[in-house]
Amino acid sequence: MTEQPSHEGLFISFEGIDGSGKSTQVTRLAEYLRRSGREVVVTREPGGSDGAEEIRALVLQGDPDRWSAETEILLFTAARRDHLERLIRPALAAGKIVICDRFADSTRMYQGLSRGDLRGTVDKLHDLMIGVEPDLTILIDMDPIEGLKRAKGRNGTEERFEDFGADLQSAMRAGFIELSKEYSERFRVIDGGQEIDAVAADIQAAVEQAFSTRQ
Amino acid sequence: MTEQPSHEGLFISFEGIDGSGKSTQVTRLAEYLRRSGREVVVTREPGGSDGAEEIRALVLQGDPDRWSAETEILLFTAARRDHLERLIRPALAAGKIVICDRFADSTRMYQGLSRGDLRGTVDKLHDLMIGVEPDLTILIDMDPIEGLKRAKGRNGTEERFEDFGADLQSAMRAGFIELSKEYSERFRVIDGGQEIDAVAADIQAAVEQAFSTRQ
Repeated sequence: MTEQPSHEGLFISFEGIDGSGKSTQVTRLAEYLRRSGREVVVTREPGGSDGAEEIRALVLQGDPDRWSAETEILLFTAARRDHLERLIRPALAAGKIVICDRFADSTRMYQGLSRGDLRGTVDKLHDLMIGVEPDLTILIDMDPIEGLKRAKGRNGTEERFEDFGADLQSAMRAGFIELSKEYSERFRVIDGGQEIDAVAADIQAAVEQAFSTRQ
Repeated sequence: MTEQPSHEGLFISFEGIDGSGKSTQVTRLAEYLRRSGREVVVTREPGGSDGAEEIRALVLQGDPDRWSAETEILLFTAARRDHLERLIRPALAAGKIVICDRFADSTRMYQGLSRGDLRGTVDKLHDLMIGVEPDLTILIDMDPIEGLKRAKGRNGTEERFEDFGADLQSAMRAGFIELSKEYSERFRVIDGGQEIDAVAADIQAAVEQAFSTRQ
């Protein structure tokens, strides 16, 4: 029952491993779209609405093992449902462009892949309780070692990387590429190894193409 | 995929509308079972484990409309999954009797019935993420007006009743009776209009019968 949203706006998600430059490119795209006179809402997951941010805090605080993978998936889905109802859908209905840093594809990867073989559960839960996919998903593809080098420049990121492990990062990258083939109609894979301006230009082109396809 | 738990213990839930005397009877049954030398764990939903209690607080605090019915169902299911993993299953595996004040049947009624026609969603979510039913469910059946009179004696309960409305309480009572027919193999309906000792005796008899059936 995957339902495409009916609205005037455009729902764009950014996906990719940590260190792939998503946050920078989300900001760049928002600036570009605003310069061209479009109304843009920038948001992120987990979180994005008041209730979802509270659920995010509950999931991410404390011992990493305090929640099982299944409980974590349920909490993230609850947060996504709130985010969708309270922020994403109203913004799209008002004709705005929503740019979301991570959406359901990240749950498919991080909970569905890295915490046991729960991809089937993640998909069933998504179909039952969310049922919406972005109109366009920008996957910034990045070599994990290169991403790690860039991320080390950012405060507080190194530790998470070490926790996560390079092997898992490589598996995540491969998983995202697989996902882009599975949902090829909405995914655009961007080479994140280029200079920031070149990445931004590729993303702008992908978004303009999405606009022209919709009209 | 409703899975019956395989364990040595016995998983007993109590259900019924507010004011039906569940809490009193949970205590009475626990005392009775402990006197007969059995190990008993008394718990309740929503909540029951550390994580589930935190989720409970998140759901129940603040404006009643802060969560949609769907988000609320997801949060209660997350809490139930945690409760099941961290408290109920380990206790049953250790051969203990678990008495739980409300379990999934309350979600079927309160979220599935009272907050829109979401019973189908509640059931699918339960099958996907919980998959366990109690061995025995004690439904304390009580006239809502009688329940209201009793509950008025308790501090802080009156307001909740007024919020809820007598019509809804009547619908809940009828819904629980319907549910007891749907899951007739595990439900025992007890007349809650009797004196407390008589109710307790009926419940003890139902539990002893459940033990004899298992052996």
